[in-house]
Amino acid sequence: MAQVAQESATIGDSEFDRDTAVTLRDPHVPGVYEAQLCAGWTIISAVNGGYLLALIGRALGDALPHPDPFSVSAHYLSPSVPGPAVIRTETLRTGRTLSTGQASLFQYAEDGTEVERIRVLAAYGDLDALPDEVRTTAKPPTIPPYEHCLGPADGPAPAIPGSSAITDRLDIRLDPATVGWAVGAPSGKGEMRGWFGLADGRAADPLSLLLTVDALPPTSFELGLKGWTPTVELTTHVRCRPAPGPLRVAITTRNLAGGFLEEDAEVWDSADRLVAQSRQLAKAPLPRN
Amino acid sequence: MAQVAQESATIGDSEFDRDTAVTLRDPHVPGVYEAQLCAGWTIISAVNGGYLLALIGRALGDALPHPDPFSVSAHYLSPSVPGPAVIRTETLRTGRTLSTGQASLFQYAEDGTEVERIRVLAAYGDLDALPDEVRTTAKPPTIPPYEHCLGPADGPAPAIPGSSAITDRLDIRLDPATVGWAVGAPSGKGEMRGWFGLADGRAADPLSLLLTVDALPPTSFELGLKGWTPTVELTTHVRCRPAPGPLRVAITTRNLAGGFLEEDAEVWDSADRLVAQSRQLAKAPLPRN
Repeated sequence: MAQVAQESATIGDSEFDRDTAVTLRDPHVPGVYEAQLCAGWTIISAVNGGYLLALIGRALGDALPHPDPFSVSAHYLSPSVPGPAVIRTETLRTGRTLSTGQASLFQYAEDGTEVERIRVLAAYGDLDALPDEVRTTAKPPTIPPYEHCLGPADGPAPAIPGSSAITDRLDIRLDPATVGWAVGAPSGKGEMRGWFGLADGRAADPLSLLLTVDALPPTSFELGLKGWTPTVELTTHVRCRPAPGPLRVAITTRNLAGGFLEEDAEVWDSADRLVAQSRQLAKAPLPRN
Repeated sequence: MAQVAQESATIGDSEFDRDTAVTLRDPHVPGVYEAQLCAGWTIISAVNGGYLLALIGRALGDALPHPDPFSVSAHYLSPSVPGPAVIRTETLRTGRTLSTGQASLFQYAEDGTEVERIRVLAAYGDLDALPDEVRTTAKPPTIPPYEHCLGPADGPAPAIPGSSAITDRLDIRLDPATVGWAVGAPSGKGEMRGWFGLADGRAADPLSLLLTVDALPPTSFELGLKGWTPTVELTTHVRCRPAPGPLRVAITTRNLAGGFLEEDAEVWDSADRLVAQSRQLAKAPLPRN
């Protein structure tokens, strides 16, 4: 990707790493972390749910004996806003292969009381300790070459309407077949596909995958629905440490019913490995006439 | 289904309802429930994870202001055994459309201390209050007629090896295309399909769907792997109240890698509605030579 060549941000020294930093509040109190929700990761006025997940994931990676998120289930309780937050973690189980933890991210009401934004249950392990055996029948999504896909600079913006901050931090190029919504001609299919990278060229890792699965525009746009699609619950499985290079993301919605829809995301790396799978249940925007 | 005609168990008065009953431990302490894990729902020696989920789901349905599970994320911490259990619930959020709760199921060590078996985060709503609009591209699975599918009585048992108790309570008929494993000839495809009903004819409801998604033999059998496939995490979305009549269940595994696999389950009702979707991350059995 062009920007990768130009930039030199690295894992540990990048916008994403700085903006997802967490610090132990009190060295004598394990598992409680201070964080700052950065305005740079907002969509319209809300903080992106994947960015929040990466932040919580970093806290859990510090609190648990295993380093990598294997399965992270997040329930979104109230919209997060830029500003200070506290993440409280709890270790539920410690095993040889996996450990399980819980985390809650809180912000503060005007009177200073804590307001919970997200609650997470997560199983952590060590991706590098897994056997190499791969027996997958899944196939990478068919996406045109990066240079043939469309980004915010390509006119009718595949950026989410009204948003800008997060798009400056991401290098997303959408498959032209899934950007009809941006020119008022949604395909009617519940599909969104594209290339994903961090704008400063920082390589992907298990933490950034938690952002990747929730970073593309919602499939509801291609289903002809405008407006906000709030996530109720999002579960992500990180299956493999991503190889260097751009990621391909394919999101599918098969069932829009009763005012809710699921979004299934697959993330593939440059070595054609399925590195993450996620599914979220989201509230569909009300159809507008 | 033949047995439905013979039996007359009803929702509220059935084996499933009796065995998933929960009672408030203390009328003055909301949200804490006593339960009995029944030996009738075991696979080999472990209590079935879907049965446990239904039990916890019943407790949450009582504790939360909304009646129906919409999204239930469960992390399995230690194997449950038949006997007494306590379920502790916590209400995290109460909204107009959805409320969110947490629940933990504990059993007791020999010294009486509580041992946590499962922790759950769940969003509850009211399925009957949802708009009727359905825009799904998902198609029901192609499964031969019930009478052409295979049950435990049909010789080479599609029952899970070594287990019997739970199979007496379920009326599962597997698609012959997915029972090769039972005669030592697994298809090599990560697929398991069949008809699902409760043996006493009790109709399906949102609670029993939590059992249905985890009741078929694991897809790993058809992938040629023998042995236990422990669930790490299982998330279920109930999308619609099931119509009366038998259910069709299709489970797919697309990625077996690094010793883990996902199992995606779809449950369809007699009205061709997609009533539940689930995904679990499970540990693959070690290949045997």
